[in-house]
Amino acid sequence: MSELRWHPFLGEWVVTATHRQERTFFPPEGFCPLCPTKPGGPPTEIPCDNYEIAVFENKFPSLRTPPLPPEVGGSDLIPARPSDGVCEVVCYSPDHDATLAGLPLRQIRKLVRVWRDRYIDLIARPTVRYVYIFENKGKEIGVTLSHPHGQIYAYPFIPRAIGNRLDAERRHFERRGTRLAQDWLAEETKDGRRVVWESDAWIAVVPTFARYPYETHLAPKSHVPNLRALDDTGLDGLAEGLRVVTQKLDRLFGFSMPYIMSLFQHEADYTWLIVELNPPYRTADKLKYLAGSEAACGVFINDTLPEETAARLRAL
Amino acid sequence: MSELRWHPFLGEWVVTATHRQERTFFPPEGFCPLCPTKPGGPPTEIPCDNYEIAVFENKFPSLRTPPLPPEVGGSDLIPARPSDGVCEVVCYSPDHDATLAGLPLRQIRKLVRVWRDRYIDLIARPTVRYVYIFENKGKEIGVTLSHPHGQIYAYPFIPRAIGNRLDAERRHFERRGTRLAQDWLAEETKDGRRVVWESDAWIAVVPTFARYPYETHLAPKSHVPNLRALDDTGLDGLAEGLRVVTQKLDRLFGFSMPYIMSLFQHEADYTWLIVELNPPYRTADKLKYLAGSEAACGVFINDTLPEETAARLRAL
Repeated sequence: MSELRWHPFLGEWVVTATHRQERTFFPPEGFCPLCPTKPGGPPTEIPCDNYEIAVFENKFPSLRTPPLPPEVGGSDLIPARPSDGVCEVVCYSPDHDATLAGLPLRQIRKLVRVWRDRYIDLIARPTVRYVYIFENKGKEIGVTLSHPHGQIYAYPFIPRAIGNRLDAERRHFERRGTRLAQDWLAEETKDGRRVVWESDAWIAVVPTFARYPYETHLAPKSHVPNLRALDDTGLDGLAEGLRVVTQKLDRLFGFSMPYIMSLFQHEADYTWLIVELNPPYRTADKLKYLAGSEAACGVFINDTLPEETAARLRAL
Repeated sequence: MSELRWHPFLGEWVVTATHRQERTFFPPEGFCPLCPTKPGGPPTEIPCDNYEIAVFENKFPSLRTPPLPPEVGGSDLIPARPSDGVCEVVCYSPDHDATLAGLPLRQIRKLVRVWRDRYIDLIARPTVRYVYIFENKGKEIGVTLSHPHGQIYAYPFIPRAIGNRLDAERRHFERRGTRLAQDWLAEETKDGRRVVWESDAWIAVVPTFARYPYETHLAPKSHVPNLRALDDTGLDGLAEGLRVVTQKLDRLFGFSMPYIMSLFQHEADYTWLIVELNPPYRTADKLKYLAGSEAACGVFINDTLPEETAARLRAL
């Protein structure tokens, strides 16, 4: 059973997908479904004995094409609709123990090209409205497979939080004729205290308005709405920035840092490609939890000063 | 340092409050700051040797009156403002090992009366725009003090998610002349499959659009916008419902269930008092994590069917 149900109070679609409850299976000792299939060994998700980067559809997808028919159905007040869309898994490396931060730069260059290809393919599909490329990393985020991988969700609607974001960017552009991200980055550059790293074409900052203690945004310095708009030089610059930022996060507390990494991008010309990394730690041994204020009201409480956390990351 | 910073992409205020980082102190063995002060013992937050229900201002408040002056300051694009408001702690019982579910009904009747008093007092203050009564319960939610207690945040703005909610209720009322909660509850009552419990005047349901597996909403059957509108009978009915629902959640997996409990209410006549309980467990040993889709896009994936989880809770 899988369908989308409308939350009439919050104005958002909820994916109700019961077949996923069984998704945590217990593979045999030493078996990883995201590793290449060893000759003579049990088949993994990737039926060959090596790969550079592998992309395949999630075995337990929240969204699929064609979708399952809605089972329970909806009403005028609380509509239900098929959970159309695509869920893909992106394996970053055949090396089970690798992490994005530890990959050779040439491998990250390949990865951003794979992301670009998948974005261009998925956003062109008639039922897809938003393509969300992301990585949930670490058991603190609930990840059960440690093999380095990310995911791509192609939603059949604009997600609520993405809609808020695109609206804010559109309104800013209509009112001022400049892009919101452009004006924000100009302020960050001028102030300088929250800049973590920069190259000729890319900049990483802990934004003034950070919701998580070590929240880091990586963005191009000049206008790039999405991965499609990046040429080879731009893609290499993104790869370099990803490597630098994830390595800084690993050095912060001396362990491989868990995070939610999100690529925000869209077709609209007023938007701006931003890679946001949100690590859940506020100190080396304390997690930032999303409790009542954050989860129910949308009011984040950040116990750290972005001016200070950025300085720590910059120095690493 | 404590100030509010505007998130220009998401349109929400972020509380930046650095003094809270030190809030986890290590009390002496056997010492609980929320217990009554024992004669001759170290002083707790409550300077008397017994109490029924105690309310006091949080020692490490995110919001305070008068607020600290903003330190870093904002800009036209990213305004900053003082983090005005009130953060209160509500101790449910002097018994350190109690939980809301285990309190005698007469004690829960007192608690809802305390909530009502605090709501009426705080919402009348000139700088307060929203009063959020809630309980974060359990280490899974990041709670470090196990003494039974809840909190109240009086925000100097309408929180973003609350604004979405009130807008949806207002638009529904303007369009149809009925209240959104009223029409939704009528559908739940008619369908019946998701009803967990009901009395003459109160109903508890796992809503069609549940985002968490055992998300339970407790609401009055006829129009009550907020706690102020409840008379003694209404308050007693709410207390009974809270007791029934929290006891069902405890029986579900055989342990004291953690949760985020939120009271949604406001002064507007089109709104409706709803107590929402969100336990983080999806099975007895698996947590529901808020990862990329939920935390960054606002798209929740519920791996359970509300029709089934409600039936389980109903039967307990």
